Amino acid sequence: MKKIGIVGGTGYTGVELMRLLARHGGVEITAITSRGDAGSRVDAMYPNLRGAIDLCFTAPDEANLADCDLVFFATPNGIAMQQAPELLAQGVKVIDLAADYRIKDLDVWSKWYGMSHASPDWVERAVYGLPELYRDEIRDAELVANPGCHVTATTLGLLPLMGQAWVDHDRLVADSKSGTSGAGRKAEVPMLMAEAGESFKAYSANGHRHQPEIVQTLAAVAERSIGLTFVPHLIPMVRGIEVSLYIPLVGEPTADVQQLYEAYYDAEPFVDVMPPGSHPETRSVRGNNLCRMAIFRPQGAATLVISSVIDNLVKGAAGQAVQNMNLMLGFPEQQGLDLVALSP
Amino acid sequence: MKKIGIVGGTGYTGVELMRLLARHGGVEITAITSRGDAGSRVDAMYPNLRGAIDLCFTAPDEANLADCDLVFFATPNGIAMQQAPELLAQGVKVIDLAADYRIKDLDVWSKWYGMSHASPDWVERAVYGLPELYRDEIRDAELVANPGCHVTATTLGLLPLMGQAWVDHDRLVADSKSGTSGAGRKAEVPMLMAEAGESFKAYSANGHRHQPEIVQTLAAVAERSIGLTFVPHLIPMVRGIEVSLYIPLVGEPTADVQQLYEAYYDAEPFVDVMPPGSHPETRSVRGNNLCRMAIFRPQGAATLVISSVIDNLVKGAAGQAVQNMNLMLGFPEQQGLDLVALSP
Amino acid sequence: MKKIGIVGGTGYTGVELMRLLARHGGVEITAITSRGDAGSRVDAMYPNLRGAIDLCFTAPDEANLADCDLVFFATPNGIAMQQAPELLAQGVKVIDLAADYRIKDLDVWSKWYGMSHASPDWVERAVYGLPELYRDEIRDAELVANPGCHVTATTLGLLPLMGQAWVDHDRLVADSKSGTSGAGRKAEVPMLMAEAGESFKAYSANGHRHQPEIVQTLAAVAERSIGLTFVPHLIPMVRGIEVSLYIPLVGEPTADVQQLYEAYYDAEPFVDVMPPGSHPETRSVRGNNLCRMAIFRPQGAATLVISSVIDNLVKGAAGQAVQNMNLMLGFPEQQGLDLVALSP
Amino acid sequence: MKKIGIVGGTGYTGVELMRLLARHGGVEITAITSRGDAGSRVDAMYPNLRGAIDLCFTAPDEANLADCDLVFFATPNGIAMQQAPELLAQGVKVIDLAADYRIKDLDVWSKWYGMSHASPDWVERAVYGLPELYRDEIRDAELVANPGCHVTATTLGLLPLMGQAWVDHDRLVADSKSGTSGAGRKAEVPMLMAEAGESFKAYSANGHRHQPEIVQTLAAVAERSIGLTFVPHLIPMVRGIEVSLYIPLVGEPTADVQQLYEAYYDAEPFVDVMPPGSHPETRSVRGNNLCRMAIFRPQGAATLVISSVIDNLVKGAAGQAVQNMNLMLGFPEQQGLDLVALSP
Repeated sequence: MKKIGIVGGTGYTGVELMRLLARHGGVEITAITSRGDAGSRVDAMYPNLRGAIDLCFTAPDEANLADCDLVFFATPNGIAMQQAPELLAQGVKVIDLAADYRIKDLDVWSKWYGMSHASPDWVERAVYGLPELYRDEIRDAELVANPGCHVTATTLGLLPLMGQAWVDHDRLVADSKSGTSGAGRKAEVPMLMAEAGESFKAYSANGHRHQPEIVQTLAAVAERSIGLTFVPHLIPMVRGIEVSLYIPLVGEPTADVQQLYEAYYDAEPFVDVMPPGSHPETRSVRGNNLCRMAIFRPQGAATLVISSVIDNLVKGAAGQAVQNMNLMLGFPEQQGLDLVALSP
Repeated sequence: MKKIGIVGGTGYTGVELMRLLARHGGVEITAITSRGDAGSRVDAMYPNLRGAIDLCFTAPDEANLADCDLVFFATPNGIAMQQAPELLAQGVKVIDLAADYRIKDLDVWSKWYGMSHASPDWVERAVYGLPELYRDEIRDAELVANPGCHVTATTLGLLPLMGQAWVDHDRLVADSKSGTSGAGRKAEVPMLMAEAGESFKAYSANGHRHQPEIVQTLAAVAERSIGLTFVPHLIPMVRGIEVSLYIPLVGEPTADVQQLYEAYYDAEPFVDVMPPGSHPETRSVRGNNLCRMAIFRPQGAATLVISSVIDNLVKGAAGQAVQNMNLMLGFPEQQGLDLVALSP
Repeated sequence: MKKIGIVGGTGYTGVELMRLLARHGGVEITAITSRGDAGSRVDAMYPNLRGAIDLCFTAPDEANLADCDLVFFATPNGIAMQQAPELLAQGVKVIDLAADYRIKDLDVWSKWYGMSHASPDWVERAVYGLPELYRDEIRDAELVANPGCHVTATTLGLLPLMGQAWVDHDRLVADSKSGTSGAGRKAEVPMLMAEAGESFKAYSANGHRHQPEIVQTLAAVAERSIGLTFVPHLIPMVRGIEVSLYIPLVGEPTADVQQLYEAYYDAEPFVDVMPPGSHPETRSVRGNNLCRMAIFRPQGAATLVISSVIDNLVKGAAGQAVQNMNLMLGFPEQQGLDLVALSP
Repeated sequence: MKKIGIVGGTGYTGVELMRLLARHGGVEITAITSRGDAGSRVDAMYPNLRGAIDLCFTAPDEANLADCDLVFFATPNGIAMQQAPELLAQGVKVIDLAADYRIKDLDVWSKWYGMSHASPDWVERAVYGLPELYRDEIRDAELVANPGCHVTATTLGLLPLMGQAWVDHDRLVADSKSGTSGAGRKAEVPMLMAEAGESFKAYSANGHRHQPEIVQTLAAVAERSIGLTFVPHLIPMVRGIEVSLYIPLVGEPTADVQQLYEAYYDAEPFVDVMPPGSHPETRSVRGNNLCRMAIFRPQGAATLVISSVIDNLVKGAAGQAVQNMNLMLGFPEQQGLDLVALSP
């Protein structure tokens, strides 16, 4: 059994990691840290884990994380960049579920995250944890930067088109919608049920941190600049992201786009290109690690539409992190992730 | 007191008309027809109307609609085109909340609605019931075609830009999201709470009837052809539409877009251009007749974003119909519509 | 126009007061205080009030509340007991929407609210603001204690049975369920949509503050002791309370219970006893001031069941407060409250 | 691998059976019947099963159910009583998820289900599928009647108290609340999201079929008559049941009730008696087979309160059926049911 530590286990990515790791079979959680809740039982905070996780939160200083094979940082932005390097130096592998190591350009990162980086050298060494693109690099990585949730749904939805001559890479639109668990388990008025329930709105329409993260990956694949308008929205529900992607065409596709997508993702265990005419529902991936997508060309006009769905806490966070862990520790990639989505 | 009839009062547009007309002050509902529920009390079906509406449903044949000053058709598509002409011939004014008289091109209409039209001459004479564009014509109209719900939010959001030289009229995108009441009060599996709850999806992504209706109006205003990709989505909530509009620019705007919108809608009682940086929430118009919108230009790039919200059953249906009724019968335009939105 | 002040206008009872008073017609809001938001526009916090309320929040010290005819305290518990007496001494009428003046027994109050009372003399002089019981006293009151939300639904549901010889007053059960807006607009983790959404639970099952408040009124009416088990629950929705009341019988009712209720509430403008077999839905009172209820006697056995619904923010808070204001200031009792519930 | 058939696989109990059986490891689904959808892929109707279930629906006549080791009937009431006997005669074990074999008294059954029974002899031979009570009988059963959903939560919550001298068995109250998936996947107006969303109500308050089923079991255990008032309610969410049980005491408990419950369920793999002061949430059992409960004695008065939660589609239907299947086919009782609940 590999030993796993979780730093900052009181948020939603933390509880999801525990849900998945509790039934993984190849790993043992040896420490879950929380400064504020040290000493209290994990399942007192998360009753869904009663019977599955028999641990208490540990103060960060007292958790012997250096003994772990791998440590997840399920912390707010800005923590892993300070604490991960010491663990890495001791040979512990690290997966950061926050944004600290996602953006390679430090100026861009500082602009969007409002801090200067504490371990810039590790930014360079970190591997971006999107297995569909960087599987081999992840296998060898010491440090993996787990992608953002809107980012995963959007990037996977656009990847097969990048670099195609008939795609207008300058005018891409991603209209993304997320359940409220994406905002985390923080006491904030706008995320109250009485505020976010039975209502719908866009947010951060003038600019959101996930836009440069998406662009970084797409530009690397397309080997050219990318123009992307990305607008996130808040859905009155708990889990799930749907992104509708609008891709203007500058010429007629030289391939059947449906076949292009099916071929691109043929060997991928966690990407499901649905049959023509399907409309992916977020509930079809509730609780599992799949990204399902469908391709449209409304009335044969010059704009492609891709609808892509994930569970923001699974493929958008903890599930993708476990997928990365499997690659890093030599487990089969699907181990512990073979769950059927909960629907209805 | 003007006499009002409602044909097909058992759906959501019917109950909303009654909610609004019950407190209008200048009208009296004299007949509400329903073939299936004739003889039963209206408030037995709609307990929210207990104490406000003291009527029974009447069989269509027995309702003396010809005595009404104005009759609303809150019927499925294809009914008003058959029944309205007889009333019109008797001098009764008619507002159709369905789609029978919205599309001027009969071939386009037949293609999307799957019927041939029963009263094509009245299509030509019908006035499209968007007061912000056709207020004067509505005042004099015998027959008004009340706009669709997605249509109203989208059209109002785009109107001020139509004809501007710096707008790419060929690549407009409308990503619209609606609560489930937009599907009406019909027993259908996909609209069950257990199907539509806690989930989100696009629908009709390959083409939806509201697209040609939007294009018809925009093309008339812009005096040119319009290319619009319109994709509707289903929100797990009851009421409200938010549409995010993506408008590619082909040049730098020659005016401040915020000011352009504020000036365009300055005198409109039911359009609210919000201050820069606001994100309109659907709940901010819940139960009232307003369309609220905000303008964004993400990171100063070459795509404008407009977010526009309405209550699909009010400004998107019954409220706009009452606004049209006020114009047609000579009431102040806001009479009976001066409600504050219910939030939270 | 009477002058109205609102102390603590940033919570849900505050915004609901404004929604109702904005269309009342006989009053003018002259001050809305908020220490934290002084100087900012009310409608920036509550966009649903755009166009209806044209005011900024005022710092408590700078609001000239002594010039008001009546002041609402929409504050947390413990504020009105300190600030109301000074206004009362200046002849300003006061309605407290919090719990400061609801419980006559100061020891009971201190036990449940964890403070000692700052103005015990005013507790005695305060009139309990349930118009169905204390209408005449409210007309003459200087200070009204507006009832709690669970309390209003429960008390109105039980009143007609109090003192009946065939009712077991010692074993009453109230199983109450509330939408999350009842918890107020406070940033608290358990009220996040991601916590309270798509889930249901009881809370405070070992004892809740509303129990002694209900018992106080029922005991006064029944003129005997009351045994009541009261358990509140949290519904994954925003607005509405349903309470199911279980009343064991110790003898056969000497009157038809349906008729008893209809007669008891015959003249009440805001209580609706529904026909036999009806099941009141919370949405049938959404946004209005009604309490609707229905009476059951399952299978003719020895337990009556009453189902009673209100909108927790209207009849359970701001609406009842306006009803009390109407009585205190000499307006018709229904003025400004004649709204049709929003359904669906 | 044991061969499993599912008759009537298009409803929610059908899709849940498939979700659970797909990952069971010891069984193979060989036939899923549906008259209306014969020939179409199962995962076209249920996209969450894409990649997990690779089958088409079969016409009932063409499914070789007699080759199965065990057949589940996930059909409406009244089907299994006609079709199960033939399979049973061929040695196929049967679990009926409908109500055909739940009630031993045929007159009671006919009264509540409105049919006369087609296989009354099998009613007698059927074992009631509540493993916590009838584990040994289930192991040997040919035919198991799987309990109702409200029934399971209520019965498990009351069992440890049955027969206690200090419990008033004549005045029990069960206030049960269910998500809308309990009504099944049937196109019915009251279950539309626009009807059941953002609202709460009681239903069937004058009498519900689950009441006699609960009473039958409790009376058998208590060895005396039972008086139970049972009122179900509809929660605006998809999954989950919470029942609050009110148990009047006629004497002081002779044992610590918390300890009594913990001891009673000590060895049960799917019943979780939570620590004192806990309030079970339905989401803490979302998607898994647990019943979690907590015990209260509000203010030390003479009424016990038990709050009991299950997932209506799992422990309330398909999960309990798989638990029964495990017992009948000799698998470990928890096989395929070791899932961690999905929360948030």
